[in-house]
Amino acid sequence: MNKNATDEDYMRLALEQAQSAAAQDEVPVGAVLVDATTGAVVAAAGNRTRTDCDPTAHAEILVIRDMCRRDNAQRIPACHLYVTLEPCTMCSAAISFARIEKLVYGAPDPKGGAVESGVQFFGQETCHHRPSVITGGVLAQPCGDILRAFFKDKRMAGR
Amino acid sequence: MNKNATDEDYMRLALEQAQSAAAQDEVPVGAVLVDATTGAVVAAAGNRTRTDCDPTAHAEILVIRDMCRRDNAQRIPACHLYVTLEPCTMCSAAISFARIEKLVYGAPDPKGGAVESGVQFFGQETCHHRPSVITGGVLAQPCGDILRAFFKDKRMAGR
Repeated sequence: MNKNATDEDYMRLALEQAQSAAAQDEVPVGAVLVDATTGAVVAAAGNRTRTDCDPTAHAEILVIRDMCRRDNAQRIPACHLYVTLEPCTMCSAAISFARIEKLVYGAPDPKGGAVESGVQFFGQETCHHRPSVITGGVLAQPCGDILRAFFKDKRMAGR
Repeated sequence: MNKNATDEDYMRLALEQAQSAAAQDEVPVGAVLVDATTGAVVAAAGNRTRTDCDPTAHAEILVIRDMCRRDNAQRIPACHLYVTLEPCTMCSAAISFARIEKLVYGAPDPKGGAVESGVQFFGQETCHHRPSVITGGVLAQPCGDILRAFFKDKRMAGR
């Protein structure tokens, strides 16, 4: 990827991470972090809560942790985050702590999201940093489809 | 510690973790996890965001991750969590994901908390598990004092 890549281009890479997560029986959400200057993808992950036995191992948290550690920093304002699902309450706050400047997500999540749904964290007084760009609904259909298929399979298996 | 230990007893141990954090130049918040059956402390940590270069390395998250990994589970309902400061938005959601059944905290945090302050996450529709016991204000004075002293020192040093 380079500086001419679009939000959709990056979201397709996040979707690949979601697909890899599904193959590991993880909730298929994927994320990539992009260097805002070069356009290069600098971190990528799918959910790993089962694999890692870690309820905090959402895709967003994993790429933030990964990049912060490599950058030797708690804040990575030069990174843009792409994630296939609207971030939850935990991840929205982590995105704020990490000082991410641009957030792009795919499918909305009325049941667990915290950007346009739920607590709408970035508009709250206890949120001390809000990404200057927040875009939802990018490739919302395929980003949502992969989750719907995953949970439909789970329900079928549970019968 | 044993089954006769009180909330104050455990909070004193969390405060020791906060003190250790301060000695590492970390924001002095400490947490312990307690086995609800035996009363034994099974995990303890202070904030490590600087040390670990991880904006998600709050004391609560660290003890949850630690215990989940050792328990080989994403959920640890048999654990009680003691933390010196009202959990933030990120940690409140993580506490919910981990299915913690009892949460005890020390000082309230009107600027960044999410239990009695801010988004009051456990009362939200996008919160799918609420601890059945939530107690705030345990040893609130010393738990708050250590934070006030830390930030006062920081301001003095900045002059």
